[in-house]
Amino acid sequence: MKLYDTQRAPNPRRVRWLMAEKGIEDIEVVQVDLLSGQHRTPEYRGKVGAPHVPALELDDGTCISESLAICRYLEALHPEPNLFGRDAKEQAVIEMWTRRVEMYLANPMMLTVRFTHPALAALEAPKPEVAAYNRDSADRYMKVLDRRLADREFIAADRFTIADIVAVTGIDFGRLIKYRLPAEHEHLKRWLDACRARPAAKAGM
Amino acid sequence: MKLYDTQRAPNPRRVRWLMAEKGIEDIEVVQVDLLSGQHRTPEYRGKVGAPHVPALELDDGTCISESLAICRYLEALHPEPNLFGRDAKEQAVIEMWTRRVEMYLANPMMLTVRFTHPALAALEAPKPEVAAYNRDSADRYMKVLDRRLADREFIAADRFTIADIVAVTGIDFGRLIKYRLPAEHEHLKRWLDACRARPAAKAGM
Repeated sequence: MKLYDTQRAPNPRRVRWLMAEKGIEDIEVVQVDLLSGQHRTPEYRGKVGAPHVPALELDDGTCISESLAICRYLEALHPEPNLFGRDAKEQAVIEMWTRRVEMYLANPMMLTVRFTHPALAALEAPKPEVAAYNRDSADRYMKVLDRRLADREFIAADRFTIADIVAVTGIDFGRLIKYRLPAEHEHLKRWLDACRARPAAKAGM
Repeated sequence: MKLYDTQRAPNPRRVRWLMAEKGIEDIEVVQVDLLSGQHRTPEYRGKVGAPHVPALELDDGTCISESLAICRYLEALHPEPNLFGRDAKEQAVIEMWTRRVEMYLANPMMLTVRFTHPALAALEAPKPEVAAYNRDSADRYMKVLDRRLADREFIAADRFTIADIVAVTGIDFGRLIKYRLPAEHEHLKRWLDACRARPAAKAGM
């Protein structure tokens, strides 16, 4: 299998982090240069079917894009440590939290960076109202998450899961625009430090 | 089990549609009135943990929000007809397409309606740039989907799946702002008509 990857973007980092948690080392990693538009070439689009990174190419040539589809597929091949839930109910709770942190925090943070960071203005015209709308959403969800973590070690279960990966990689992406976590979010800060201290967190920071 | 549901919104319709495809009839459906803010009451938030509809309350009191987490949970309880994939690879392909149509079409259409429709201005101030950004995304993805459907009956597999449900319910929600499918998208139109003709499509139109 081959993973089409790119440094710095938050979605590929979800996959690298999951691979590091599971100790997956038998996937060839191929770097795709977004700034030079390598993901938009006919060759890449022909293979993946979309200009999306990351993508996982299976041995039969099938390409899977969408980081969370890739992560769930890798969990099926490498079930331990379990990151998506052990039974239908736990899977549902973990998926619920993963989607919440993705929709209300990670994706809004990504769009805030995209429409704020000067280097990305080359890719798409700045959209201040879109940036502000998304930043408000991310800010609001930080507060929700801080409350959630007041009496829990991790977001979705009594152990580290894919929901934590999606939340941390989303927050960390804000570093590109020097996003600072509001100081009053002490529970969020404690959880963030604990996640960042995991050996797998280093996977392609 | 109880499903907290609301008419017209697109996400609860995904769940109703899936339930109708699977013939699930043993779940009590409770209507939540969004316009009067019933989802924001301490009672509802205390139960679901968020002001989100739909939500599925399990018999042990656990509440699952996020329509796709609910749908996947119901698939685990009622595996047939299969809508999420029969093995890890098919599941990955279906999840990839489900996420694509959600992120690039259904969610953008939802935000376009939210920031365009006059009745919804009561809930949130109009944001014309956010509406335009999302409408562009939905328009662009209609084109991608039309090409995808040129030589295929359904979006993600050789049968109807959850990806089709997410795409149709997203497109149908555009009716609130009289969104018209561009006439040149003949493949998309054929697929849309076929999906709308399914008996389950009537589930809470």
